Amino acid sequence: MSHVEFRTSPERYRHWRIAVDGPAATLTMDVDERGGLVPGYELKLNSYDLGVDIELYDAVQRLRFTRPEVKAVTVTSGKEKVFCAGANIRMLAASGHSWKVNFCKFTNETRNGIEDATENSGQAYLAALNGTASGGGYELALACDQILLIDDRSSVVSLPELPLLGVLPGTGGLTRVVDKRHVRRDLADYFATRSEGIGGKKAVQWKLVDDVVPRARWQEGVAERVRAAVSSSTRLPGGPGIELPELAKERTADSVKYRYVTARLDAVRAVAEITVAGPADDAPASMDAVYGQGAACWPLAAARELDDLILDLRANETELGTWVLRTAGDPARVLSWDALLLDHYDRDWLAREIVLYWKRTLKRLDVTSRSLIALIEPGSAFAGSLLELALAADRSYMLSGVFEDVDPTVLPNTGSPATVTVGSMNIASPPGNGPLPMGNGLTRLQTRFLGDPGALAAAEKSAGEPLAAEEAERLGLVTFAPDDIDWDEEVRIAVEERASFSPDALTGLEANYRFAGPETVETKIFGRLTAWQNWIFYRPNASGPDGALRAYGTGKRADYDRRRV
Amino acid sequence: MSHVEFRTSPERYRHWRIAVDGPAATLTMDVDERGGLVPGYELKLNSYDLGVDIELYDAVQRLRFTRPEVKAVTVTSGKEKVFCAGANIRMLAASGHSWKVNFCKFTNETRNGIEDATENSGQAYLAALNGTASGGGYELALACDQILLIDDRSSVVSLPELPLLGVLPGTGGLTRVVDKRHVRRDLADYFATRSEGIGGKKAVQWKLVDDVVPRARWQEGVAERVRAAVSSSTRLPGGPGIELPELAKERTADSVKYRYVTARLDAVRAVAEITVAGPADDAPASMDAVYGQGAACWPLAAARELDDLILDLRANETELGTWVLRTAGDPARVLSWDALLLDHYDRDWLAREIVLYWKRTLKRLDVTSRSLIALIEPGSAFAGSLLELALAADRSYMLSGVFEDVDPTVLPNTGSPATVTVGSMNIASPPGNGPLPMGNGLTRLQTRFLGDPGALAAAEKSAGEPLAAEEAERLGLVTFAPDDIDWDEEVRIAVEERASFSPDALTGLEANYRFAGPETVETKIFGRLTAWQNWIFYRPNASGPDGALRAYGTGKRADYDRRRV
Repeated sequence: MSHVEFRTSPERYRHWRIAVDGPAATLTMDVDERGGLVPGYELKLNSYDLGVDIELYDAVQRLRFTRPEVKAVTVTSGKEKVFCAGANIRMLAASGHSWKVNFCKFTNETRNGIEDATENSGQAYLAALNGTASGGGYELALACDQILLIDDRSSVVSLPELPLLGVLPGTGGLTRVVDKRHVRRDLADYFATRSEGIGGKKAVQWKLVDDVVPRARWQEGVAERVRAAVSSSTRLPGGPGIELPELAKERTADSVKYRYVTARLDAVRAVAEITVAGPADDAPASMDAVYGQGAACWPLAAARELDDLILDLRANETELGTWVLRTAGDPARVLSWDALLLDHYDRDWLAREIVLYWKRTLKRLDVTSRSLIALIEPGSAFAGSLLELALAADRSYMLSGVFEDVDPTVLPNTGSPATVTVGSMNIASPPGNGPLPMGNGLTRLQTRFLGDPGALAAAEKSAGEPLAAEEAERLGLVTFAPDDIDWDEEVRIAVEERASFSPDALTGLEANYRFAGPETVETKIFGRLTAWQNWIFYRPNASGPDGALRAYGTGKRADYDRRRV
Repeated sequence: MSHVEFRTSPERYRHWRIAVDGPAATLTMDVDERGGLVPGYELKLNSYDLGVDIELYDAVQRLRFTRPEVKAVTVTSGKEKVFCAGANIRMLAASGHSWKVNFCKFTNETRNGIEDATENSGQAYLAALNGTASGGGYELALACDQILLIDDRSSVVSLPELPLLGVLPGTGGLTRVVDKRHVRRDLADYFATRSEGIGGKKAVQWKLVDDVVPRARWQEGVAERVRAAVSSSTRLPGGPGIELPELAKERTADSVKYRYVTARLDAVRAVAEITVAGPADDAPASMDAVYGQGAACWPLAAARELDDLILDLRANETELGTWVLRTAGDPARVLSWDALLLDHYDRDWLAREIVLYWKRTLKRLDVTSRSLIALIEPGSAFAGSLLELALAADRSYMLSGVFEDVDPTVLPNTGSPATVTVGSMNIASPPGNGPLPMGNGLTRLQTRFLGDPGALAAAEKSAGEPLAAEEAERLGLVTFAPDDIDWDEEVRIAVEERASFSPDALTGLEANYRFAGPETVETKIFGRLTAWQNWIFYRPNASGPDGALRAYGTGKRADYDRRRV
């Protein structure tokens, strides 16, 4: 598999069109059959591969940042009679296991992002199914706030994965059917075994769609819903939209460099050493200045860079099993940006969008199947939003004191011991669960101190105080706080050890520990559904030479080992 | 693998001893090395296989029913310096995938039963770790209400599965560490990668155990905790304990017959047709008479039989992928027993134990990886506790009207259409979630009508009314209600179709749909942890010729494919 590039922009799209008409946008899926990301399959019937979804992700992001006036987004198809046939089967059949899993992870994140836009950005998504939506096509619709299905006596919604392919719908379908749309579980069972799908009134009665609209009044029916969504939108006011120019990025075999984010890729140690730099200056006094900086402003630029890096490493560097997370810079400057954004979170769309983007990017880290180890050293900036990186890590090491053999006149800011600072970005505030909740609905501090309200209160009470290593350890904010004498050895062992363990077992361990606490549709999708799908994808009944995924379309019937486990 | 027998009794135990001293019982694990269930491994260091756990399950059950005076149960080891080394590795390495998964499912259910006894029966379990508890040994301790560890400078608790075997702890360990004991997730991460374990004060500080007790005052320290548990027990009063004689069971290759429960095993159609018969008479007027009937009383006898059947079919009939569930008898008699038991649920230990046993048996059904189809026909008794069988099913079919070609003078009770009746057993009542909650904490009706409080209220309001098929369908209590003309065809297609699908995909589908709604430690263990473990068990990194499970103890190092997914 060649290198996957996640950066794109509308003028390069091959599969999607964006049209904006005042407060309403339309995303039209019109997949170029010959536009597959890798050779070997044709993207027929609006089926998709990772390349199609990369464009969708880009489109959703751009609508948020460049089109503040948009309050409702209609997703529809540019093909006749078909909305979307889901993920391309030949692509899946030809893909290796980790490609399939990574593909599903990204498509899940994009659909969660659509729900986030509906819920938190005042940009509600409406699926206008002008033809049949099957498998991943229906799952895309499930991620929208409303689903309208054309009533033309042939268009249906379906989840044919189980009967036709011997796998599960891989993009949250099962979870959203019962847990989001509340389809009764026995009806959901019937639906997921019926490859021919369900349309018409029954689809409405069973809650599979919100309404069916006759062809004759389709445009009008969709327009009515769009108008209603626009008028009930909570989109915030603020300045004009900002452009998202292509990220400047230097990528070599052993490094990735952006403006604020850098990574050293060490194949021998199986490690990516990631550093996120804080802002070079304090935040400006007002949002006006932020509009002036546009996409170059620190929090947006850093989020975009980190987002792209995570996607790049996940897709292209599967053998780098451990990510070491560092920060650099002035903690006070990070906190000044946090304060500006939170101060405007409820009154300026851009402030809110930047915070929401950090939230989604940190969530991406949470579901990344790599061991995350945070190193908190002199010169670092683990405060507020950047402290979340340490809280997202499986483990953190904070140097007590300074490195004795480092000359602070040569390496800036290394003369004083590191601190960590809890800030408003880390703390839940009513009515929600704070600006940066995890997928489980809790803040990372709440998850960390699950069942220990005293420890949580003590950590939150420290907000604003730069904490030295001993104090941070005492408050439970870092895992270990070795001094200079032990540091190298402890960190080396932690990293080397991680590389010596089974990558599969680590993935399972991390997926269980990171999602402690309550569950949501999101954690179920990543924790439960993904795990089952991982297993099913890997079994010969799906992926073996006679498995259903490989047999599909060949005229052969899959040959199943019938034993239940 | 030869036929697995789940029926046993203390005089046949090879691995456990039960001792009762007034209100305190002690379960001593003293595994016979040469007592493995199948040849090929020695059960060294109190390691266990399915046979050891079958005895533990039996012991826990008997303490509940035959020892009403017991209010605290200490679990300890009969070996020197070792509490329990967990599941036997050579046994795991030699086992096929479905054996491993089934083994873990049963051991999980037994541990959940221990928690149920602590929480609901007033028999609190205390783990007295008089030596090292590793892997499944520590997981057994985690299922207890309290964990005491001897402080002898060598005894520790550990979860060495990940570093040593490349798999996860398979019996709820990860979930209970963070979600039950609230060990901080980064400390939990460190703990699960440290094969040498943690003991002494750090084990207490990290919440891995409740206390460490020096060897010199071990007996006394344990006794103190036992006395406290006894004095705070909520064990109910009632009559004397009842014996649990060996279940009478006729087992052939194509049938299983007990007094109330029967199953026809059809290898060609890959179906087990299970019928649970209701009581032959109304319930007696008082619990006195129930004590007189003892284990022969209908609800206890039927629960024991269904429990044994589920275990038998899961272990021994893995190719029978669909279980068809029927009932037979007089619904009013079922409801009379339900009423008697619920009337005494808060004042008689036996009434409560019988209801708790039904709860656990129904939960076993929920986590069984077989498609469950309920058929509701004339002569059936789907009321109250037996209605739960239909509500546990993935799908139900209820005949509208009668079978025209059946002569009711030949087959009794087939002259009138079937009914279903909601009863108190199906309804949540404060403060808990009703007598028969699922693992997700909800009743099966609440799960069924998730997000639809109006439909739930309507179904609950019908309590006591025998509902004909049309009404049951309208209320959403059954999936489909075909009449005699369509019945055979619809049911045949449903069953045949199920047999044609991928068993793996069905297992994943059912595990996702059945656990809709909120999550608990229990649903996380079965839904999330099990799914990850399924996948990890199946990957070459664990189970391949060079995988960690197979390499363990050979002196060879596992050779891992390092790619993350």
